[in-house]
Amino acid sequence: MLSRLSFNSITRAFSQLSHAPYHKAPVKVAVTGGSGQIAYSLLLRIASGAFLGPDQPVDLAIYDLPQMQQALRGVVMELHDCAFPTLNSLIATDVYGSVFDNVDYVFLVGAKPRGPGMERSDLLKQNGEIFVEVGKALDKYAKKTVKIITVGNPANTNCLIAMANAPSLPKENFTAMTRLDHNRALWQLAAKTDARVTDVKNLAIWGNHSSTMYPDITSTSVKGKPAKELVDHKWVAEEFIPVVQQRGAAIIAARKLSSAASAGNAALDHMRDWVQGTHGEWVSMAVPSDLYKGEYGVPEGLIFSYPVTCANGGYDLVRGLKLDKFSEEKLKVTTDELLSEKKAVEHLLKP
Amino acid sequence: MLSRLSFNSITRAFSQLSHAPYHKAPVKVAVTGGSGQIAYSLLLRIASGAFLGPDQPVDLAIYDLPQMQQALRGVVMELHDCAFPTLNSLIATDVYGSVFDNVDYVFLVGAKPRGPGMERSDLLKQNGEIFVEVGKALDKYAKKTVKIITVGNPANTNCLIAMANAPSLPKENFTAMTRLDHNRALWQLAAKTDARVTDVKNLAIWGNHSSTMYPDITSTSVKGKPAKELVDHKWVAEEFIPVVQQRGAAIIAARKLSSAASAGNAALDHMRDWVQGTHGEWVSMAVPSDLYKGEYGVPEGLIFSYPVTCANGGYDLVRGLKLDKFSEEKLKVTTDELLSEKKAVEHLLKP
Repeated sequence: MLSRLSFNSITRAFSQLSHAPYHKAPVKVAVTGGSGQIAYSLLLRIASGAFLGPDQPVDLAIYDLPQMQQALRGVVMELHDCAFPTLNSLIATDVYGSVFDNVDYVFLVGAKPRGPGMERSDLLKQNGEIFVEVGKALDKYAKKTVKIITVGNPANTNCLIAMANAPSLPKENFTAMTRLDHNRALWQLAAKTDARVTDVKNLAIWGNHSSTMYPDITSTSVKGKPAKELVDHKWVAEEFIPVVQQRGAAIIAARKLSSAASAGNAALDHMRDWVQGTHGEWVSMAVPSDLYKGEYGVPEGLIFSYPVTCANGGYDLVRGLKLDKFSEEKLKVTTDELLSEKKAVEHLLKP
Repeated sequence: MLSRLSFNSITRAFSQLSHAPYHKAPVKVAVTGGSGQIAYSLLLRIASGAFLGPDQPVDLAIYDLPQMQQALRGVVMELHDCAFPTLNSLIATDVYGSVFDNVDYVFLVGAKPRGPGMERSDLLKQNGEIFVEVGKALDKYAKKTVKIITVGNPANTNCLIAMANAPSLPKENFTAMTRLDHNRALWQLAAKTDARVTDVKNLAIWGNHSSTMYPDITSTSVKGKPAKELVDHKWVAEEFIPVVQQRGAAIIAARKLSSAASAGNAALDHMRDWVQGTHGEWVSMAVPSDLYKGEYGVPEGLIFSYPVTCANGGYDLVRGLKLDKFSEEKLKVTTDELLSEKKAVEHLLKP
């Protein structure tokens, strides 16, 4: 206990180091699950300026559980040892209040992984309890303009719980990550059509960040040509969709470790695009369906992944797409899963 | 065997994907030890544009041993799943010729770690054999203008062996990393003097990247004031130098894992500064002492860390520093260690 307290005081002390004037005022970025593998890659990139640019100083605040503070201390040492000019201050603690106090951007990476013999309903409930606490702390401490991404799984439902427990914050501040699925789909289609990822436009991930998620190429073009003319439906249904849905498992099989770096990268992409805009390009974000009142047949009250564009610090739904029967069926499957997840945590949704 | 071959052919196939015109011609970057923890963080940042900038396309070539190809396949999948616009092509293989062919920049990360019961002389010899092969392959395949950083330990002597086995390449192309030590020293001094890392100027790491390395603040200033007036000699000798020298062990004690991300970051800093210049600022690089013919009493024939400045794609020694008696003693210790390492691998230094 003493060593943890003294550690916290050491890192807090460093947060008062900053004297020399920066051109921009620092912004505060919080990351939970700070001692885990996704955070290990993500924290370094945030501190290096890869999130908000080389001229934007960052006050970085890292949360993890009491029993993870020793490992977190190692991460803090490494962040110091990078000597990043953009890292204005750094705190690491097991107190949500310090981490979320006056925070601008939040990466909710920490979550309880599914252990052996654990039912999905247990996973939902145990994570749910974490995200009730996270939501209440965000409600109490965060800036009202805070932008939040939920990375820890089950991400959509965790996000829903946090949002429900933070009634003073605008709903649109709460999002969950499907950008990793989006990026995976971009590469699969680029490789298949002998193109670059930047040649692929208007791709969408719909629904839940889970194996029911629907990677949709109905409106997609590759070098200006409709993707549906370049690949056949059999490939889409039997290869493309399953490969994107099951990519995480394939990486674990190869590396014997989960896809931490690409997940961290997708979180950075999601938040950077939300802040800096996508200049008309589509990206996929899981956002509150309440904002779009039944659009595309998605009921209100869910965190649902849609194609969106980002501009002026906000995101907006890509509207007016015509969904074919195949897509409608896929959307129904992932919607039903989200509704059943919601039902399992209904008791956690009243602040 | 079949799966490895087919994997190589898959990743090679992707190397032919690139069609759309870039504003700049791609450059080739090679990384060895590609399935390890340092590379895991480093590869992603190179592919993201953090090494050469967001407008410089990169052909990334990754080497690891035959038995590491499956894990490497997972890394390749994750790099694809980042959908980086700057990643023009990607190959991953166990053939040095493919990885080093026409290469511009090389990160020699792979090395054999010291196992239980292994003597230091065994470590030197077993790594030595790896770096003989690396040197010969670089000699045969790399561009004559290639820039090489050796990260794998014992880095200085590994670099010396590679250089000796690549007689057709200019000696100044071969360097080893002491930038992690440099960055660690920057932060320690900044924290002690209540300053930012960017306030600390003219710091130097001398000698071997090992526990004999000498972090030197004799010429250092903090916010324009001489560091020696801000901290006392007792702190330098009894805290600063040992903490910097033993920082790697402290991080392993905290994380139960080695300091992979900060090492990868330092490698990136070293190479980026070499390419882009330091605008008069000092950095530390281990470079061939032959270039500086006895300067500071360092004998020729070593890879030795000095303070340098970088400009126009080259580095140059900071000359004319006056070393006090304390510094002279420290330089002698680390020089003697490098000479004894060299003696242990003498038979590997004849190409």
